[in-house]
Amino acid sequence: MFTPATAEQKFVLDHIVRVATLSDDATPDMVEAVLEGAGAFAAGEWFPLERSGDTVGARWTEGGVVMPEGYAAAYRAYVDGGWGTIGSPVEFGGQGLPVSLAAAVLETMGTANMGFALAPILSVGAVEALMHHGTPEQQATWLPKLSTGEWTGTMNLTEPQAGSDVGALKAKAEPRADGTWSISGTKIFISFGDHDMADNIVHLVLARTPGAPAGTKGISLFLVPKYRLNADGTPGEFNDVRVVSIEHKMGLHASPTCVLSFGDNGDCLGELVGPEMGGMRAMFTMMNNARLNVGLQGVQVAERATQRAVAYARDRIQGVRAGAPAAIVEHPDVRRMLMRMKAQTMAARALVYLAFGELDRARAGDAAAEVRAGLLTPLAKAHGTDLGNEVASLGVQVHGGMGYIEETGAAQHFRDARITPIYEGTNGIQAADLVGRKLSMDGGAALLALIAEMRGEAEDAGLIALIDACAEVVRHLLAAEADDRLAGSYPFLTMLSVAVCGWLMEKQGRAAAAAEGDPAFLAMKQAAVRFYLAQIVPEALGLKAAATASAAMLYAVGAEEFAA
Amino acid sequence: MFTPATAEQKFVLDHIVRVATLSDDATPDMVEAVLEGAGAFAAGEWFPLERSGDTVGARWTEGGVVMPEGYAAAYRAYVDGGWGTIGSPVEFGGQGLPVSLAAAVLETMGTANMGFALAPILSVGAVEALMHHGTPEQQATWLPKLSTGEWTGTMNLTEPQAGSDVGALKAKAEPRADGTWSISGTKIFISFGDHDMADNIVHLVLARTPGAPAGTKGISLFLVPKYRLNADGTPGEFNDVRVVSIEHKMGLHASPTCVLSFGDNGDCLGELVGPEMGGMRAMFTMMNNARLNVGLQGVQVAERATQRAVAYARDRIQGVRAGAPAAIVEHPDVRRMLMRMKAQTMAARALVYLAFGELDRARAGDAAAEVRAGLLTPLAKAHGTDLGNEVASLGVQVHGGMGYIEETGAAQHFRDARITPIYEGTNGIQAADLVGRKLSMDGGAALLALIAEMRGEAEDAGLIALIDACAEVVRHLLAAEADDRLAGSYPFLTMLSVAVCGWLMEKQGRAAAAAEGDPAFLAMKQAAVRFYLAQIVPEALGLKAAATASAAMLYAVGAEEFAA
Repeated sequence: MFTPATAEQKFVLDHIVRVATLSDDATPDMVEAVLEGAGAFAAGEWFPLERSGDTVGARWTEGGVVMPEGYAAAYRAYVDGGWGTIGSPVEFGGQGLPVSLAAAVLETMGTANMGFALAPILSVGAVEALMHHGTPEQQATWLPKLSTGEWTGTMNLTEPQAGSDVGALKAKAEPRADGTWSISGTKIFISFGDHDMADNIVHLVLARTPGAPAGTKGISLFLVPKYRLNADGTPGEFNDVRVVSIEHKMGLHASPTCVLSFGDNGDCLGELVGPEMGGMRAMFTMMNNARLNVGLQGVQVAERATQRAVAYARDRIQGVRAGAPAAIVEHPDVRRMLMRMKAQTMAARALVYLAFGELDRARAGDAAAEVRAGLLTPLAKAHGTDLGNEVASLGVQVHGGMGYIEETGAAQHFRDARITPIYEGTNGIQAADLVGRKLSMDGGAALLALIAEMRGEAEDAGLIALIDACAEVVRHLLAAEADDRLAGSYPFLTMLSVAVCGWLMEKQGRAAAAAEGDPAFLAMKQAAVRFYLAQIVPEALGLKAAATASAAMLYAVGAEEFAA
Repeated sequence: MFTPATAEQKFVLDHIVRVATLSDDATPDMVEAVLEGAGAFAAGEWFPLERSGDTVGARWTEGGVVMPEGYAAAYRAYVDGGWGTIGSPVEFGGQGLPVSLAAAVLETMGTANMGFALAPILSVGAVEALMHHGTPEQQATWLPKLSTGEWTGTMNLTEPQAGSDVGALKAKAEPRADGTWSISGTKIFISFGDHDMADNIVHLVLARTPGAPAGTKGISLFLVPKYRLNADGTPGEFNDVRVVSIEHKMGLHASPTCVLSFGDNGDCLGELVGPEMGGMRAMFTMMNNARLNVGLQGVQVAERATQRAVAYARDRIQGVRAGAPAAIVEHPDVRRMLMRMKAQTMAARALVYLAFGELDRARAGDAAAEVRAGLLTPLAKAHGTDLGNEVASLGVQVHGGMGYIEETGAAQHFRDARITPIYEGTNGIQAADLVGRKLSMDGGAALLALIAEMRGEAEDAGLIALIDACAEVVRHLLAAEADDRLAGSYPFLTMLSVAVCGWLMEKQGRAAAAAEGDPAFLAMKQAAVRFYLAQIVPEALGLKAAATASAAMLYAVGAEEFAA
C-alpha cells in the first residue's frame, strides 16, 4: 500500500531544485541510489509500524514515555543506516549531501510513518541551532551523536501561557559558579520530549536569565540534556527533566507530545547556546528549518492519502459505466478528486523542495538564495500543510463510508494532518510573517523579484493573470496599514503560493514534455499540470478581493458581538 | 458553552422562510416559544451528554447496543416534551406546525449533541416514508409511536457490495402465505440500527422479491420491526433482526453505526410498503428528507464550532495590541477566521431553511415549491455539509495547539463533521443529481427561474457577476455531454450554492438594516453579510473554469497512470 515516490522525487530534484548543481557528489546515480535506498528502508522498516503508531501510540509511564513495539528497533535501524545524516556536515559525521536530498529522504520516512518521522525533524532543528550558534566545544560534544540520530533533539518554546507569543515565556535560568545554568520551568507541546528509542535526549530550551527584559528580547537558549554526560562523553546522571504527561491528541499518536518539567528538584543543569538574550535568533534558526520540514509533512500526508485513495478507487467496483460494472476511479467526480489530489501533492512537493534548494544555495554563500528561502518558508509551511489537509480530506471522501471507519486508514491521515497548520507557528503566523517581516525587509524587493521571475516564464494565460494579480496585491499591501496587511495576509499567502506552484507545475510540464522516461509517469505529470493550470490557478484568482480587503470589515463589530 | 441560536433562527424563519405565511398556527409568539423551549431543553438535557457521547460512545454488547449513561433518560425526556412531533401531522399525534420550524428545533438538538440528534433524523425519514407510501392500516399501526419518537426508525439501504450504488443490493424478501414477507440479508452503515432508548425500532429495508429484475427497478421497501407487535399493539416477540457489530468510526460516536443481520434464523417478518418494485420511489421520499436533515447537521456543527471558537478567542490572552495584552479575538487573522465562521454558518442556515420552507409550501400543494425544494436539496445537503466541515476546521485552527487536544472539544466537531459529506448520498452524488435529474427534468427551467429570481433581487456587483456566471455555466452544461456535466458538477454545485447563499445573505442584510431588535445581533448580521459578499462570493467566481472544464482533462490518462 506504500510505494516510495522515487520517480516523482527525482523529477522534482532534477527539474525544480537542479540538485546536480548543488554538489559534485549529487550525481544522478547517487541521488537515485539514496532515494531508492530510503524508499526500500522506509517500506520495510517504518511503514509496517504506521498503524500501531496510531492505535497503540506512544504511552506515558512512571518511568518515561514508551513507544509502541518495534519503534525502538526501527529507529535504531534508521540511525545505523545513516538515513538521518545525509544533509549533515561531514565534520560531524554527516554525509554532506544537499539538504534538499535529505528532505526527500525525510519525506519518504514520513510518508511511510508520519508521526514517527517527527523525531528526526526535531533532531535536525537541534543540529541546526548548534551548528549556527554553539561553541566549538558544544559542537564537538553534542553534534556527532545528534547528527547521526543516536541522540535525539527537541525544541522547548511553548509554555501554558505562551503559545504563539513566545515572548511571554517564564522558564528561568540561574547562573551557577561553574559556568553552567540552573534551569527551571514547565514546557508544553514538546514533540518527542521523551521516548525510549535513544540513549539521550538533547532539549533546546528557551528561558529567561536574571534581570532579563520582558518580551522576546530577554530570552536565551539553553542546551539541557536528559542525562548529563560522563567524562568519557557517555550519558550518565539524570538531569532532573521530568515528563509530566503526554497529550491526548486527535492524531499523530506515534509522536508523544510532552509536558516537561525542568528542575523540580533544583538539579537541572543547562549550557547557554549563543549569547545571553540571543535566544530568539537561535530559535529562528531552529524554527525556520522546522517550518520547512512541517511543510514537508504536508507533502508526506498528501502523498500517502493519494496513494491509498488511488488504490481504493481502482479496486472498488460500484455502479456502471458503458454498460459494465466499473471501478469508482472511472466515475468523473471521483476522477476529479483523484486528479486534484495528484496535482496538489505535486504542487506541494515542488514548492517545499524549491525552498530546500534555496537553502542549499544559501549555505553555499548565495545571499539572494538566502532571501528567497526566507520568502518561501512561510509559503512552504502554510500552503504545504493546507494542501496536506485538503488532500487527506479528499482521500476520506474517495473512500465514501469506508473512509469514516478507522480500520480503513484514510481517517488516520485526516487526523494526523490536522496538526500541521498549527504547530511550528500557525499558518496565520506564517501569513503574518509573509506580509510583515518578509514583505517589508526590503520594501518588497525580494517578493517583486520572485513575481517578476515567474511573470517572465509563465505561458498559461490564467497563470499570468494570477501572477499579475499577486503583483497588484503586493503593491497594495506595501502601501497599506499594518492591520490591513494582516487582514489580507492569509488569502494573499494562498494566492501567492498557488502562483508559485502554478509556475513550478508549468515548468514541470515543459520538462515532462521534453523528458524521456516512463511514459505513464510523464503522462500523469502532464495531465496533473494541465489540471492545475486549468482548475486550481483560476480558483486562486478569486482570493484577490479578500487579500486586499481592509481590516475595517473585520472590526465593524466588537468582540462581544461575535457572541450575539 | 452552548447557547441556542434562537435569535438567529427566528430571524431566518421570519425573513427567509417567512414562516408566518406557512401556517396560521406559526404566529411570532408560537415560533418564539417553540424555539426558546427547545433551546432550554437541549441545553439542559442533551448538551451535558455531548462529551460522553464521544468519549464513551455507543457500545456493542451481546444483548444489543448500549448507549452511554443518561442517553435513555434524555431521549425519553425529548419524547415526553413533544420535541419530535412538531412537524408531524395532527392525525398521527403531531403538532402540525411547519417542517421548517421542526427543522429549527432539530438543529438546536443537534447543536447541543450532534450524534444524539441523528436518532430523530432517521425516525423522521421513516415517518415520511409511511405517510407517503404506507397503507392506512400501516399508518395507523406504526405512525403514532414513530411520530412521537416512542419508537425510532432506521433506513436500511447499504450493503457491503452496494454503497452509493443501491441497485446492487442483494437482501431478499420471500412472500409468505399470510401476506407478510420473510426478510433475509445483511445491511451495513445503519445509524441507530440498535440502541436501548426506545421500546421498539422500525427498520425500513430495501430488498428484492423473487424474480425481481436487476438494478434499482427490482427493489421493494419493507417495514421490519425489531419486535413484532402483540394484538394490543405493544412490542412482543423478537423479530430475528440481530445487530452483528458497530463500526469504529472517526467521530459521531454517540450514534451507533450498525451492521444488521436480518433473518439469521429464518424468522424475520416484514410488511411491504408501497407497491412491489416501488422501493426506489419510497426510498427517495426518505432520502430527500434525510438529505435536508444532513445539510442541517452541517449547520449544527458549524454553529457549535463557532460558539466554541468565539468563546475561546475572547478568553485566550496572547500577544499584544495597542501596547496591552490582548485576547486573540483582537488579532486580525483570528478575527478573519471568526468572521468567516459566523458568515458561513449564517449562509448554511439560510440555505437549508430555505429548502425546508419550500418543502412546507410543497406540502400545502404548491407545485413550483416542490420543484424548487428538489432543486435546493442537493445544494443544502452538499454545501451545508461542506460548510460544516470548513467551519469545524477553522474552529480547530482558532484554538491553536489546544485545538488538537481532545479534551478541548474542538477536535470532536472536526471529527463529527467529516461523515456529513459522505452519508445520505455523497456530496459527489448530490452534484450528479444537480447536473443530472435536477437540471434536465425540465430543460433547466427550474434552475434558470431560480437564477432569474436571484438576478432580479441582487444588488452587490460581485454577487451579480457570480449569478451571471452561474447562468452561463447552466447554459454550457445544458448543451454538454453527460461526462462533461459530471466533470464540472461539484465546482458548479459550490458556485451555485454560494450564489444562493449570497442572495440570501444580501436579503438578510436588508432585513437587518430595516429591523428593530438587539443592536448587537443586527450589527453582527450586517457585518457577516458584508464579509460574505466581499470575500466569499468572489472566491466562488474562481470556480467557473472548473465548472465548465471538460471530462477529457480527467481522462487524459488511464486509471493505471494514477498509480505511476
